[in-house]
Amino acid sequence: MKYHRSSKAARRSGGYDPDALISSYDLKADEVSSVKKAVLDAVKPHPAERARLEEARERLLKEVAEAAAGLGETEVYPVPVGSAARSTWLRGNHDIDIFITFPETLSKEELTVRGCAIAEKLAETADHREDRHSEHPYIHIRKYGFEIDLVPCFRVPDASCIKSAVDRTPFHCRFIKERIAGREDDVLLLKQFMKGAGVYGSEVRNRGFSGYASELLVIFYGSFDEVIKAAAQWKPGVFIDIMDHGNVSFDDPLVMIDPTDPGRNVSAALSLDRFMKLADHARAFIRRPDVSFFFREKTLPYSDEEILSVFEKRGTYFTAIRFRSPKKADDTLYPQLFRMENSVRETLENNDFKVIRTLSYGDDEECVILIELLSGLLPPVRVKDGPPVSAHPNSDAFREKYVAAGDTYSIFIRNGCYIAEIPRRYRTPESVIRDKTGTEIALGKHIREALSDGWDILSGEEILKIGSEGFRTALRETMERTLPERSCAGSEIIIG
Amino acid sequence: MKYHRSSKAARRSGGYDPDALISSYDLKADEVSSVKKAVLDAVKPHPAERARLEEARERLLKEVAEAAAGLGETEVYPVPVGSAARSTWLRGNHDIDIFITFPETLSKEELTVRGCAIAEKLAETADHREDRHSEHPYIHIRKYGFEIDLVPCFRVPDASCIKSAVDRTPFHCRFIKERIAGREDDVLLLKQFMKGAGVYGSEVRNRGFSGYASELLVIFYGSFDEVIKAAAQWKPGVFIDIMDHGNVSFDDPLVMIDPTDPGRNVSAALSLDRFMKLADHARAFIRRPDVSFFFREKTLPYSDEEILSVFEKRGTYFTAIRFRSPKKADDTLYPQLFRMENSVRETLENNDFKVIRTLSYGDDEECVILIELLSGLLPPVRVKDGPPVSAHPNSDAFREKYVAAGDTYSIFIRNGCYIAEIPRRYRTPESVIRDKTGTEIALGKHIREALSDGWDILSGEEILKIGSEGFRTALRETMERTLPERSCAGSEIIIG
Repeated sequence: MKYHRSSKAARRSGGYDPDALISSYDLKADEVSSVKKAVLDAVKPHPAERARLEEARERLLKEVAEAAAGLGETEVYPVPVGSAARSTWLRGNHDIDIFITFPETLSKEELTVRGCAIAEKLAETADHREDRHSEHPYIHIRKYGFEIDLVPCFRVPDASCIKSAVDRTPFHCRFIKERIAGREDDVLLLKQFMKGAGVYGSEVRNRGFSGYASELLVIFYGSFDEVIKAAAQWKPGVFIDIMDHGNVSFDDPLVMIDPTDPGRNVSAALSLDRFMKLADHARAFIRRPDVSFFFREKTLPYSDEEILSVFEKRGTYFTAIRFRSPKKADDTLYPQLFRMENSVRETLENNDFKVIRTLSYGDDEECVILIELLSGLLPPVRVKDGPPVSAHPNSDAFREKYVAAGDTYSIFIRNGCYIAEIPRRYRTPESVIRDKTGTEIALGKHIREALSDGWDILSGEEILKIGSEGFRTALRETMERTLPERSCAGSEIIIG
Repeated sequence: MKYHRSSKAARRSGGYDPDALISSYDLKADEVSSVKKAVLDAVKPHPAERARLEEARERLLKEVAEAAAGLGETEVYPVPVGSAARSTWLRGNHDIDIFITFPETLSKEELTVRGCAIAEKLAETADHREDRHSEHPYIHIRKYGFEIDLVPCFRVPDASCIKSAVDRTPFHCRFIKERIAGREDDVLLLKQFMKGAGVYGSEVRNRGFSGYASELLVIFYGSFDEVIKAAAQWKPGVFIDIMDHGNVSFDDPLVMIDPTDPGRNVSAALSLDRFMKLADHARAFIRRPDVSFFFREKTLPYSDEEILSVFEKRGTYFTAIRFRSPKKADDTLYPQLFRMENSVRETLENNDFKVIRTLSYGDDEECVILIELLSGLLPPVRVKDGPPVSAHPNSDAFREKYVAAGDTYSIFIRNGCYIAEIPRRYRTPESVIRDKTGTEIALGKHIREALSDGWDILSGEEILKIGSEGFRTALRETMERTLPERSCAGSEIIIG
């Protein structure tokens, strides 16, 4: 998608021109102060939590340094990163991230082997350990009551010459720490507000705002209030370049040039809908400030009765493709699921089916692509639009084909074009899906492999066979998706 | 519709450039000569018919002159017009048109009264008489075995200053007579070829080529063969200006500037589809010259069993609006029926119904608008597309309305726009038609009056209640409409 790029002045202000703000989306500081206080009371870490975390972090840094020394590593420095390192974590979000930095002269393999060897030393005394993997392997442990990631990375001169995606993180952390002092509460409020809007989290499945993006927004606009006022006026194409050093252009709805890397958009993973959702949420909040905007309802999974009732109430046709999960991380699985979901929709629409909603779901056990259609049965006759009669000699081929075909219902001229009425090949969505999956319905590598073990098409009541709570929760969210002032039927508000 | 206007050279050649005709649509004279001979054997008036007609015409002209003299009219001259006057009538087409011309100084009322008084004299000794009406009244009689129109008109200096539409006819007749000598057979062939294609007749119901247009085409292109070769290459926007004096521009698919009136398009009533149908017919004929291209099959009316079988075979949903006919001439009734038909289709489509075919039918007894739909029942939920979220403050109204409405299924953001799912107001086409006829479904004056006496909606098998042969014939033509090489199931070829 290509958005209009606004003037330099507007670009530097992230599409927000305070002079143009007539008052329609002004935020009265006094009106919201009690709301903000209540939210902070709920989400700001207690002093005791903060002290415990800081103490744990210091011990861990010391342990990494000692382990490195014990292994004869001389140029290894541990660096605390993440929200815990910059005091912008939400209460109870007990994650400590420690990056074990090595000189960039190492190979990736050496980095991983030597970094994990150091991490293993700490894991020996941990309550729990796990091997994890992003671009390269790292180790996750539980110790001193905290969840801890110990991640080997390269120490590079600046973020534009990273050797591995994680190498950027220490630069982000330093940039934020140098500027966020005194505005940590604004970051907590914004993160929680994003959670309330359902737009927090930049993983592929969610396509929302990252923690780093929320911190940059507070630094750029100045405070939580100013972010809200600006977001209320966002249109796709907002451009934010704090260091005024961006050197590439992007077509994303929100472009935030990474202050540590002029070639990167921090919000590249943000979807148009999550972006506009925050704008919508900000406008609604400005109109009627309330604590509820910060706390998203927890959706409960649909029961069998609820699924049948929603099918009945909507009166549409539901069909689902189900298969055993390829058991990949969400960031690998979901792009393939989304691609399949889009391809299923397009293929059905190319065959005259009217698709109302689609939903992708995947967990460790199973994956589901659910499709809601206007109808599950099309008539036997199909109208095939041909070329203009005047586009001869090419139009002759269309004419000859359907004049000659024994099963043509009729062939005639409408609006100057040939029209043939022919027998319909696919009268049901199931027959399209059965015939086209793996060909016209494109499949990613892992889903293709998973399908080779077999797969189901479940229609109507058969969908009740899908027992997964995750799927049934996603189904309710899809069917009852609403803006903040309306509630899902089966949900309970979760504070914190 | 706006068509590309081609170069001056192409304009003068009616879009037909003989140099560009590579051979794809060349007509081999020897291949078609036997076909043409066979057609002329069938349609050219026998010498006896010709002699009888000429004799009758002369007697009638004399009788008109005598009647005028008897009534003290001194400046009245009878003029023979029509195909009978220029020897371009098809065998058995026993019409004689005699125009009774008056000085243009008369009022229209005087013209009618005095003209009809003369005609009445002839009617006294006729086998049959009828009052008829086009722009003004005239008299139709049967005498000497012929159908005769006696039409009063004004004698104007040229066709661009007519006082009544019929005043143009004598100019047309003179123009053709002066140029058609020796090419009468080409006109007969072309008219019959147009009949075979189903595009002959310029009345509103048919929207095809007039006799005058067919004669002008022969004059312009030179012969039947050349018309066919040119028509095979037609694209919408053909411009023919025999006198090279056109002074206005038209957006019609075929513009033939009237040689007797530079401001008029002779083919104004021709529809795009009839125009392209002739091109299609010409191309098919060139590929496989055959007598059958000249003779259209007579369509037989559907029986009850055939209607049920076509409904079953197509598997679609049929519904019909039926009302007592306003008993107007086709040229008055059909524009109103077409307008209603289009309005019904648009209104149904605006309400999410997918319309496949529509058909208008009207005779002296009843009128029917038939609609074929993909489905006769839509689900209770309706997807309402809202404005882009960023189009605030206007988009707020949409959001507020559907957030507040108690019966909204859901409201969310998709592709940056608000989407509301709301209860559907009209689940059946019948409910749309019942509610919107006379408001959103626009009605012409006479149909509005006719409906005030009551009307029916007939769906599915109820359509069998419509017994009219004309309707049942039109229904078969609509459902089995095909190009020449395919036949309707229920039809018989009529030669002559």
